[in-house]
Amino acid sequence: MRIGIIGATGHVGSAVFKEAQSRGHEVTALVRDGSKAKKLFGEGTPVIEKDALSLEAADLNQFDVVVDAFASQKPYQHLDLATKLISLFRNDDQTRLMFIVGSSSLKKADGTRMLDDVLKMFANEPWIATPIQQVHEVDYLQWVDNVNWSALSPQVNFVPGEKTQYRIGTDEVMENKAGKQEVSFGNFAGALVDELENPQHYQQRFTVVDD
Amino acid sequence: MRIGIIGATGHVGSAVFKEAQSRGHEVTALVRDGSKAKKLFGEGTPVIEKDALSLEAADLNQFDVVVDAFASQKPYQHLDLATKLISLFRNDDQTRLMFIVGSSSLKKADGTRMLDDVLKMFANEPWIATPIQQVHEVDYLQWVDNVNWSALSPQVNFVPGEKTQYRIGTDEVMENKAGKQEVSFGNFAGALVDELENPQHYQQRFTVVDD
Repeated sequence: MRIGIIGATGHVGSAVFKEAQSRGHEVTALVRDGSKAKKLFGEGTPVIEKDALSLEAADLNQFDVVVDAFASQKPYQHLDLATKLISLFRNDDQTRLMFIVGSSSLKKADGTRMLDDVLKMFANEPWIATPIQQVHEVDYLQWVDNVNWSALSPQVNFVPGEKTQYRIGTDEVMENKAGKQEVSFGNFAGALVDELENPQHYQQRFTVVDD
Repeated sequence: MRIGIIGATGHVGSAVFKEAQSRGHEVTALVRDGSKAKKLFGEGTPVIEKDALSLEAADLNQFDVVVDAFASQKPYQHLDLATKLISLFRNDDQTRLMFIVGSSSLKKADGTRMLDDVLKMFANEPWIATPIQQVHEVDYLQWVDNVNWSALSPQVNFVPGEKTQYRIGTDEVMENKAGKQEVSFGNFAGALVDELENPQHYQQRFTVVDD
């Protein structure tokens, strides 16, 4: 499968890149700094060196899947990239879009969103705009019914670690066997590439937890 | 004031164009068919001939205000143009964006949205996607706090007619003295250009009704 990963050199993007590469897919890094990608993934790594928000249809429509692993210091850019990618692929059956969206959009058993808790605890933190914008991104995606999109959320504890065993769910927070809401980068990448190889969540958000 | 109007040759766009032109503003038509604009507004009318969704910052940042009066047969394009315009003007203090958004996003006295009624009555009509997407557009705009935007909604009866007397409100449906939810194109254009000349609704949607 031809996979393009926006933000491939980030923590999460690089885990997804390596997982897809290890399974034999043809993976391209869509990044600002191509040399960093070649250092991480090998000299022969295909690279498109561009700001994420400058990517155009011509850069992207060569791929079977575009993974949005973009991380920005400007939180609104998460939403802007999502709306741009969607608008580029309206009524396009060829390319699938896979978004990585924060855990704050997951629901608790009582139906409220994790974001409600986060806002209660951290309303004045400088990083609060990021979970807010990522929740907007998930809300926005629910409106889109003519693009082949999916979105994967981690758990609130999203930590370095290899692929081991994991379970997936849909819109609710999940816990590992020790009762902790946690997923490793490796397990997250495993679940994401599983979904690319065997699509189960068409126009849906899903989530993954360490077993 | 330098005003660019996307969709200037449509029913609403042309009413706004003529109103702004009559008040001495420097108005440019951003349209697919420039000859139609020159026929409507005069041979000397400044025109940018482009598909709305192909407009770029370089086309738009010459204006003090960009008015989005775009109408499309593809309802999702209303949302796509809004998200594109917003992303082009993030953290830009120079250019104001004025969106024209459907009446279905207005609230009734009981707090429910006009769209709820519309969906009950017309869920299977082919045009139902347009009010749905325009409501999404209003919801999306609420998330945007770093762009100088405003949005104006007509009433459910949005009809040809000259400028007479009108009243404005914010998020609720309004009635004329005869108890009808109605506004003429002329009164709508009057209220819109009033707002451009004397800004009262920063990052807000407002509405207008015939007196």
